[in-house]
Amino acid sequence: MSAPTKHVVILGGGFAGINAARQLRQPNLRITLVDRQNHHLFQPLLYQVATAGLAAPDIAQPLRHILARQRNVTTLMDEVRAVDLEKRQVALEHSTLSYDYLVVALGARTGYFGRRAEWEPYAPGLKTLDEATQLRRRMLQAFEQAENARDTSEWSRLLSFVIIGGGPTGVETAGALVELARQVLTHDFRRIDPSKAHVHLVEAGPRLLPMFSPAQSEYTRRRLEKMGVKVHLAAPVTDIGPSHVQAGDLRIEASVILWAAGVEANPVTQTLAGVPLDRGGRVQVAPDLSLPGHPEVFAVGDLVAMTDARDVRVPGVAPAASQMGRHAARQILADLRSKPRQPFTYRDKGSIATIGRSAAVAQIAKLRFNGWWAWAMWMSVHLFFLIGLRNRVIIFLHWAWAYCTWQRGARIITGTQAPAAPVPPVATTQQS
Amino acid sequence: MSAPTKHVVILGGGFAGINAARQLRQPNLRITLVDRQNHHLFQPLLYQVATAGLAAPDIAQPLRHILARQRNVTTLMDEVRAVDLEKRQVALEHSTLSYDYLVVALGARTGYFGRRAEWEPYAPGLKTLDEATQLRRRMLQAFEQAENARDTSEWSRLLSFVIIGGGPTGVETAGALVELARQVLTHDFRRIDPSKAHVHLVEAGPRLLPMFSPAQSEYTRRRLEKMGVKVHLAAPVTDIGPSHVQAGDLRIEASVILWAAGVEANPVTQTLAGVPLDRGGRVQVAPDLSLPGHPEVFAVGDLVAMTDARDVRVPGVAPAASQMGRHAARQILADLRSKPRQPFTYRDKGSIATIGRSAAVAQIAKLRFNGWWAWAMWMSVHLFFLIGLRNRVIIFLHWAWAYCTWQRGARIITGTQAPAAPVPPVATTQQS
Repeated sequence: MSAPTKHVVILGGGFAGINAARQLRQPNLRITLVDRQNHHLFQPLLYQVATAGLAAPDIAQPLRHILARQRNVTTLMDEVRAVDLEKRQVALEHSTLSYDYLVVALGARTGYFGRRAEWEPYAPGLKTLDEATQLRRRMLQAFEQAENARDTSEWSRLLSFVIIGGGPTGVETAGALVELARQVLTHDFRRIDPSKAHVHLVEAGPRLLPMFSPAQSEYTRRRLEKMGVKVHLAAPVTDIGPSHVQAGDLRIEASVILWAAGVEANPVTQTLAGVPLDRGGRVQVAPDLSLPGHPEVFAVGDLVAMTDARDVRVPGVAPAASQMGRHAARQILADLRSKPRQPFTYRDKGSIATIGRSAAVAQIAKLRFNGWWAWAMWMSVHLFFLIGLRNRVIIFLHWAWAYCTWQRGARIITGTQAPAAPVPPVATTQQS
Repeated sequence: MSAPTKHVVILGGGFAGINAARQLRQPNLRITLVDRQNHHLFQPLLYQVATAGLAAPDIAQPLRHILARQRNVTTLMDEVRAVDLEKRQVALEHSTLSYDYLVVALGARTGYFGRRAEWEPYAPGLKTLDEATQLRRRMLQAFEQAENARDTSEWSRLLSFVIIGGGPTGVETAGALVELARQVLTHDFRRIDPSKAHVHLVEAGPRLLPMFSPAQSEYTRRRLEKMGVKVHLAAPVTDIGPSHVQAGDLRIEASVILWAAGVEANPVTQTLAGVPLDRGGRVQVAPDLSLPGHPEVFAVGDLVAMTDARDVRVPGVAPAASQMGRHAARQILADLRSKPRQPFTYRDKGSIATIGRSAAVAQIAKLRFNGWWAWAMWMSVHLFFLIGLRNRVIIFLHWAWAYCTWQRGARIITGTQAPAAPVPPVATTQQS
């Protein structure tokens, strides 16, 4: 005799959610995966969309297509409003779902340390395809406007870009942006010299890429400055306006400002009644990744704050999210087989971050190396973890092309037209 | 002794403008090319962006990059407000340009036969990348909303799409859209059957693709109906609402409506004082493509209405625009060499339109053929006329992939986020 079918609801189609769903290929499990987007996004390459290297569809795959062949999964594009742990229900914008098991994998959003209302309009983050294409549009528009402007005071403001945050996103975007200005655009303008553009990287802490060794942080700073990036360390931002950034005494006039200085958990975690959260709204989970007092609910991925069974702090990176998603799924399967649950142990495969052409820093176990080999490894690793063979082939082509020609494939300004009336909404329905 | 440098202003970076600029590689000519977009758009493939086959950057190239190596060309991204034929000046949004020669190549926009205000919000056209990605978003959203909806009356409205206009754009979009629903999406949903989607093609005239033979129009109709498109002929649209189209007695409820039923010249032509226009605002030019009474001003491309020296009506297609652009440029060069001007003669290379997988209609001189060979030729011709080797390679890959796997590379819903504050505008400047 087989057990009655259980309904597993997975919130979020990032690395954690996808990997949880894929583990649960079970006839006696019914899975509903919910995401506000229709696609799984490969966030590590988002900065290349923002800097005109790749097109948005190159780094995204429709969630329902990824899971099409797994017949026990239903994918819904909907917004998660709240979780009711007592009723075991999830309130979505268009419906309500009841669950036997819940996997919360909603990830993180850009965090502004309580200044979101004032700062986000002037310094958006880089977490979605829309934010990436918007950043691309505003950077390319700045160069176009500078070519239209006549007095040089205008030029220097229009061609100044500030990136706040010296983590991987900030470093990778600063490097790609200065290469765009100095190498890619340089011959295409007549009145301005794009290589005169100023790219500022502003970091509150004493060094870039703190997850790497001090020597590698120093290598990163030197490489970026050699490429033309102005690196400002120990410069915590105190104010942001429509066209300036203030960090202590340092004031930078700029046309485009990117905020890459912090993340916080998806605000839905605040609806998890009685669950302890850290300052960033991250969920503090039990060793098996379930919520304290709610063994039927798991939290995985970037919205979790935990130190694992080996007392290692689990970082907010894609491999950790994938491992957590698979682990939560395995605990559900263990329950079905009346097996004991296991604590989560993070397997650190190492860290790697790219700075620019032929320059990256890598750290694998005790091994640390920089430069061309780290850069080549960065590319292979990212192609490997991409979902979808077509995207791998297309991106490899774009990279090979860019390497040989110094050109980029997506220098297109879009999103300037106001969208027309949306699809008329549908009636709210009740589901379970 | 060499003549003083003349300033040639080219308005519009489409096929006409680009080809005019490329002909004017002359040390004693200074060229300024103005376009409201930063890219040259390959409009014939716009419908494939709208139907999730290609990414926007695949069919666009930055104008200033196309012309980067031609050092006598300055490219400006700006909006053309008006032309002052007496002062020989062009008013742009950010500056004013004085010219010795002017080439007006601003093309056509979607035409609504005087009902723009009422109909455009519900039935946008398909002329820009933003309109294409918006159409893609609204079509994919309709399927997502149908999967969220429970009662089937909702389904049938959400999964009904109406395309108004039986010319190439309407036929190609209808075919690509019905294949998206019937082939591409079919396995990805659990509650709805995407192949039950209704794609309506509404044409006011008695047949589709009137520029082809009646037999080919009939072939096109039969192929589309075999693919699942509901073709309505002799059905002039009388009313459009947020979710319905009325054509006489025929009323269709729909979630997405595309207007592909007409074009009119760019409204800037109305600022050409004393120049005769036809009902669509098209410029009636002299045989050499100059404006009557203004030999220093040429009008070329889709905004021109003319019958050429051989009394052939020149159609609004890319090859005609390219030929006109080159011809206007040659007349300028003839002036510089004090040579007489020549009348324009259109060289008809034939017409070709695709219906769907392995189905197209072609007409080359007296030769007419349909089916797989026409379809293969359609693809080769379009790859050939694309600008940029990279885009050719990428698009060929996408097409080969789609042919083998029935999948499409751009099923991504974007543009749902409100954009942040734009780049602060620059001061208006005076140029000449």
